[in-house]
Amino acid sequence: MTVSEHPFRDKAAIAGIGITELSKNSGVSTLTLALRAIMSAIEDAGLNREDIDGVACHQVQDSVTASIVAQCLGVDDLSWYCDQFGGGSTSHSVVGHAASAAALGHARHIVVWRSINARSEHRMGGTGRPPPAIVETQYQHPIGWVTPPQWYAMFARSHMSRWGTTSEDLGRIAVQQRANAVHNERAMMRAPMAMDDYLASRWIVEPFRLFDCCLETDAAAAVVITTTERARDLRQPPVLISGMTWGGGHMMHSNRVQADWTTSIAAKMARRLYEMAGVGPDDVQYASLYDAFTHLVLVQVEDYGFAPKGEAAAFIANGGTAPGGRVPVNTHGGFLSEGYVHGLNNLHEAVRQIRGTAGRFQVPDAEVAMSTGQPGYVAGNSSAIILRRDS
Amino acid sequence: MTVSEHPFRDKAAIAGIGITELSKNSGVSTLTLALRAIMSAIEDAGLNREDIDGVACHQVQDSVTASIVAQCLGVDDLSWYCDQFGGGSTSHSVVGHAASAAALGHARHIVVWRSINARSEHRMGGTGRPPPAIVETQYQHPIGWVTPPQWYAMFARSHMSRWGTTSEDLGRIAVQQRANAVHNERAMMRAPMAMDDYLASRWIVEPFRLFDCCLETDAAAAVVITTTERARDLRQPPVLISGMTWGGGHMMHSNRVQADWTTSIAAKMARRLYEMAGVGPDDVQYASLYDAFTHLVLVQVEDYGFAPKGEAAAFIANGGTAPGGRVPVNTHGGFLSEGYVHGLNNLHEAVRQIRGTAGRFQVPDAEVAMSTGQPGYVAGNSSAIILRRDS
Repeated sequence: MTVSEHPFRDKAAIAGIGITELSKNSGVSTLTLALRAIMSAIEDAGLNREDIDGVACHQVQDSVTASIVAQCLGVDDLSWYCDQFGGGSTSHSVVGHAASAAALGHARHIVVWRSINARSEHRMGGTGRPPPAIVETQYQHPIGWVTPPQWYAMFARSHMSRWGTTSEDLGRIAVQQRANAVHNERAMMRAPMAMDDYLASRWIVEPFRLFDCCLETDAAAAVVITTTERARDLRQPPVLISGMTWGGGHMMHSNRVQADWTTSIAAKMARRLYEMAGVGPDDVQYASLYDAFTHLVLVQVEDYGFAPKGEAAAFIANGGTAPGGRVPVNTHGGFLSEGYVHGLNNLHEAVRQIRGTAGRFQVPDAEVAMSTGQPGYVAGNSSAIILRRDS
Repeated sequence: MTVSEHPFRDKAAIAGIGITELSKNSGVSTLTLALRAIMSAIEDAGLNREDIDGVACHQVQDSVTASIVAQCLGVDDLSWYCDQFGGGSTSHSVVGHAASAAALGHARHIVVWRSINARSEHRMGGTGRPPPAIVETQYQHPIGWVTPPQWYAMFARSHMSRWGTTSEDLGRIAVQQRANAVHNERAMMRAPMAMDDYLASRWIVEPFRLFDCCLETDAAAAVVITTTERARDLRQPPVLISGMTWGGGHMMHSNRVQADWTTSIAAKMARRLYEMAGVGPDDVQYASLYDAFTHLVLVQVEDYGFAPKGEAAAFIANGGTAPGGRVPVNTHGGFLSEGYVHGLNNLHEAVRQIRGTAGRFQVPDAEVAMSTGQPGYVAGNSSAIILRRDS
């Protein structure tokens, strides 16, 4: 331990993970989904319902509140809670809030979840939803710039224009993740897909085709957070939270002075994230990169330092993010092919990699993994976590 | 420092406070209000806009999001944020989240605010608002049990029925706080009020008269949070956060098995709060008690241990909560007479008491003060903080 070590590094851990079936129509409420995922995570950790004294989730006015879930779990004396407003950009921040709370002793065992009927109830990809009540959208809605694919298409186009990124470069990400999902029993999309299938798929918003866009899914995913010390006495090997950060700042969409639309908010956060964890990009052996769109994987490969700016396409084409590559990405298929649980199912795969239970695409002897939230969205923020195997 | 000392006690501090005008019609957006209060708090702390790297607020889908405010403040690289869903019960938890983040080094200077046009836009007291999208209300709305005065009237009635609490006991709280507000230039209600005025005011929901219910206010209030160490170099004397807790558990309204409707969620939290701060009720020299309704002051006097259960009315009648009494309460007039900023303006008065700037009703040599969130609401939780003067 050096003097400069971050006081929070490795102090909290992920002790359990749980996920429901991923479907287009769960047939149940987001409350039921949440409870199923949570009970599964508690069981995975070797804990009981009675051990839980903290709860946290994130939502965009589309899911059940944390306090209702706490009551339904039967938490008699809740010690800590966080009910964060926000979507994919904030997904990993909720885990961060919970880990901070555990480290400070606010609660002993905290469940964090995201529960959505994102296909059967509140679809995010369409234009049918009323605008969220936030200032920024007053300038976007009149011109019809209202959905995430529209927003991110602008950034993808900038990257193509400046760095020569092609449709095939985006397609390679979709094809690779599908190839991963073929072997994942949880995945919603397991039919093999070739580049020709990708190129033949219809436009959603140019330059995004259908297969550039993630699924919309009914599902819930949960994790159990506790101190590293306590996690060592539980059923699973502890997965240490070495680094975490959230923020970034200025919204990308409305920031008129942003000089470079080919760099995401992740570039700002990466420095803080690595500093806290005491590692660099070269140490990261696996990465779950938030893949609401193929482009987001590409830009994060650059912004988290796995390839220099403008070189992610080549890095990916050379197998850098494939199983066996320099830093395998989304070995479960990610949001593009496994399903979209708005952050947490990607975190799960990073946990599996550290536990050594990722199956066919397990990274041998994985010690350091990363998982990220959406880099810049309506909120213009992001969140990310670095996980480490207990030594 | 003893072995059992909470690792978080006194590690963070309130370094600045700021508040806008309290009115029935601000004429501006919640964004503008938020920025005014925040700039005022930053100025109070002797900081500049550029020093802020963390933001946090709470809201119930009725205000601007934290990330928009961060952008408008010009925060270039936000290090931490929290945009908590929740009303008065969660008000002090946001300060707690921020203090935890400062203590852990996630950010250096964090602004926390609540901004509402609660009179001109989203009134909470009426029945005209659509039901919030939460599970519990599906059972309440069909029977017309939809507003906070209706909810809390049930608890007030239980207390009267079991402990012999009278209308005059409630009135004494309203009258005392008005007498305090008469001398507060910020207060919206400064006309003197006698018990006869109180008793002559119209019923809202029996046993609540008009003057049992807090104001609905357009306003924003903000605080600046940093580490105690850093706060010592700033303009104001640091107000240390000695204890903080939030949670409690089961919703009061829908919990069919709750045996005692005369005790609030605060009773559960009080133990944790005092333990963390290393003090007891006898050490608390001033208390801002969340006063959305007179009854809430009464029940918190008991549940935070200032008087035994059933004896708050006598404690108050004997001057226990009046200026000069055992534990003066809401010396600024509180939500009943100063205005309703959903938690933070009451916290401000506790800060003033510790700073020694509370004016006419300053508690001499105040060292320990408390401020609380709503004890059990829709969320069935609460939050509270104990402040201490720097030694």
